[in-house]
Amino acid sequence: MSYRTAAIEHARQHAAYYENELKEFCSIPSISTLPDHAKHMHVAAEWLLQRLRQMGIKRASVLPTSGHPIVFAETEQLDQKPTLLVYGHYDVQPTDPLGEWESPPFEPQVRNECLYARGAADMKAQVVAFLAAVEAIQHTAKSFPLNLKFLFEGEEEIGSPSLPAFVDENSDLLRCDAVLNCDGGIHAADVPSITYGLRGLAYFELEVRGPRSDLHSGVFGGAVENPIHVLCRLLANMIDADGHITLPGFYDTVTPLSEEERSELARVPLSEEDWVRLTGVPCSWGEKGYSLVERTGARPSLDINGIYGGFTGAGSKTVLPARATAKFSFRLVPEQRGEVVETQLRAYLDTHAPKTVNWELRALNFATPVVVQRHSDFVQAAANALETVFGKRPLFKRDGGTIPVIGLLKEKLGVDTVMLGFELPDAGFHAPNEHMHLPTFHRGIETYIRFLNNWE
Amino acid sequence: MSYRTAAIEHARQHAAYYENELKEFCSIPSISTLPDHAKHMHVAAEWLLQRLRQMGIKRASVLPTSGHPIVFAETEQLDQKPTLLVYGHYDVQPTDPLGEWESPPFEPQVRNECLYARGAADMKAQVVAFLAAVEAIQHTAKSFPLNLKFLFEGEEEIGSPSLPAFVDENSDLLRCDAVLNCDGGIHAADVPSITYGLRGLAYFELEVRGPRSDLHSGVFGGAVENPIHVLCRLLANMIDADGHITLPGFYDTVTPLSEEERSELARVPLSEEDWVRLTGVPCSWGEKGYSLVERTGARPSLDINGIYGGFTGAGSKTVLPARATAKFSFRLVPEQRGEVVETQLRAYLDTHAPKTVNWELRALNFATPVVVQRHSDFVQAAANALETVFGKRPLFKRDGGTIPVIGLLKEKLGVDTVMLGFELPDAGFHAPNEHMHLPTFHRGIETYIRFLNNWE
Repeated sequence: MSYRTAAIEHARQHAAYYENELKEFCSIPSISTLPDHAKHMHVAAEWLLQRLRQMGIKRASVLPTSGHPIVFAETEQLDQKPTLLVYGHYDVQPTDPLGEWESPPFEPQVRNECLYARGAADMKAQVVAFLAAVEAIQHTAKSFPLNLKFLFEGEEEIGSPSLPAFVDENSDLLRCDAVLNCDGGIHAADVPSITYGLRGLAYFELEVRGPRSDLHSGVFGGAVENPIHVLCRLLANMIDADGHITLPGFYDTVTPLSEEERSELARVPLSEEDWVRLTGVPCSWGEKGYSLVERTGARPSLDINGIYGGFTGAGSKTVLPARATAKFSFRLVPEQRGEVVETQLRAYLDTHAPKTVNWELRALNFATPVVVQRHSDFVQAAANALETVFGKRPLFKRDGGTIPVIGLLKEKLGVDTVMLGFELPDAGFHAPNEHMHLPTFHRGIETYIRFLNNWE
Repeated sequence: MSYRTAAIEHARQHAAYYENELKEFCSIPSISTLPDHAKHMHVAAEWLLQRLRQMGIKRASVLPTSGHPIVFAETEQLDQKPTLLVYGHYDVQPTDPLGEWESPPFEPQVRNECLYARGAADMKAQVVAFLAAVEAIQHTAKSFPLNLKFLFEGEEEIGSPSLPAFVDENSDLLRCDAVLNCDGGIHAADVPSITYGLRGLAYFELEVRGPRSDLHSGVFGGAVENPIHVLCRLLANMIDADGHITLPGFYDTVTPLSEEERSELARVPLSEEDWVRLTGVPCSWGEKGYSLVERTGARPSLDINGIYGGFTGAGSKTVLPARATAKFSFRLVPEQRGEVVETQLRAYLDTHAPKTVNWELRALNFATPVVVQRHSDFVQAAANALETVFGKRPLFKRDGGTIPVIGLLKEKLGVDTVMLGFELPDAGFHAPNEHMHLPTFHRGIETYIRFLNNWE
């Protein structure tokens, strides 16, 4: 039995052990955006540290940042072996609306072969699976095929604010030949895929202010322009009837899709029926002239992430509110940049906001879109591992989400990233009832084992 | 000294006592819309009951309804005297946004001759002032000039849901020659006014639902129409660039203003500068071709009272929300009706809501607009009382707010209402830092004393 086969055998024998580990990790409410959860961030970082030490990785530590700590670890670094930096994050999204969860988000529960918990899919399962793969190889191989470095941050879900400075200050520590980013997914439980592109982000908050304080809508209504109404109009008019974003110049720097790339993306099976089943919407929507796969992965988009103003309790209150606020974000594709979108947005607001109100725009978060080489050895090693485990050649996809660290590590360390993760599209990440499909979790462990050997 | 003069003298000597009474009443947080405050509703009703009994009014009781209780009382009813039914309410609006109050809303505080508290102006001061006037007359007159009946409800701020059934079931008890409604205001501290018209109301809640649950805006954004965006578009397009409401047929039943009435309303002094100072907006807004007074009192309007959807906490969350909800209300003028507006609104939504979402419209509250005869004896008795106390002939106004009870009592009991109250337009009712101007409170007591005698 080759040590690769032995490692896979070891992982299979320890399936229940790894699932328990995942449950334990998922029971830590490491919500990075909520100040009340700061202590849980430390608990999660400490959990990872202990796990790495338990695996015999002595050089492991929790490093402070100006925000949540980073867990860094490395195996013994031998000159003759290539070095792989593995990236992951231990933070999770908030849980609201809490009332829609069928089981408490931090009390992991298995139903229908899935583990339900906030963070199960995004991305604690991938972290646990990768560590399981490393452990299985350690138990069965004479020596590890690669030098490994581990970088687990606690701020991915809030845009990784501390990571750029950390990378700048620790470029020697992080030096590597390539990066494996485990924060990704595959197309379906039986359809492996490799993500070679990710959209960028430009996230804003817009506040519209009218009267000095809330007014009685009967007494003042009709002669004071309603700030919620103004906000609604400004937001509504940012998209036209064809699903195009109307900011002047917005599409100027979008790289057009080649026919070759459109053919590749057309291989991804995603029908209108799939979409309706996956999301629960009555029908799909979006920019005319582009497929579902293109609209969500390779074209920019705009979403309102939250809105609030006036009376939001039960019942009725006849108030003309003093202000209204919306959070909204653009997804960007090469070569768009958040800073440029901000300028376009300010110009739009200058032109269209009425004189009856004041407004304030706050840029909360920018990330650069990335597309990596589909045909490199590195990407092919991942593709081969997937093909062996799943029995199918993977699809090549561009994902709609944003993983700023990929652009950051390319820029700061000069290294390319391969994305290999096992979330499924209907895993409910960033939403209630997030869950990890456990059979896919175990295939993930096997894929990581094969990838680490393929790339040897 | 006539007993009228003696009553006014008595009221002046007891000014501090009545202010203390107002503070005591205002310290009861009788918020009718919030279920948590049910017990405070009983405390407020009981406070009124004790106050009436203290005045020697033996026939006084707290009567249950399907909602908050009604306080009813009557003096001895003598055949030879006319009967006046006095209407008031003891409930108040919610206090949010609580952070904007300079002193706690239920810890009444005097600053700059004003008493700051939720409910101080709307309308506990008017209730206390009227009871003070009655007490002052009782202390100084041989017999009371009128039969009085008192009707104080606890649901005015939530649209008086229990009142119609109560009036139906108690029409004998409530029989009267006329109604005095104390829930009103005057134009300015030195400009008395009589309100002869009130707008009606049609209050709705609209929920737009897209995906089954919240989705990741990166993964799904661009191919799932955003429910907040749909809601914003539907709301934005209900008003055109000229400030007109766009629902087809909306203006069909609006009674046009006569030139005579427009001239009368033009006497009300309200400049753009006044408006900006009063509200704090950069400039006024509204339907073209109508004055500020007409837009807020004699023309219909539409306000969004509240909106919420998606992530509303601090920071950023990249969510594509499952749903979004808005509360909005139309102010109506004769002869518009809420039921007709609902039909027009449903037709608008059927036509304009996209197939990508589902929507649900809930009608929360309707009230009929009213205009009463400016030239009746009854209204003139009030006008004369105001002229004596304030030294100026009052203006005649139509107010923008809604007091459904006026139309209700006309319909059920066949009686007309005169409105006489002393709120000031900048009193912050339904808003933070609500306050009652105390010199006007005391002039209110004197005006009530004179009115009760004028009408004798």
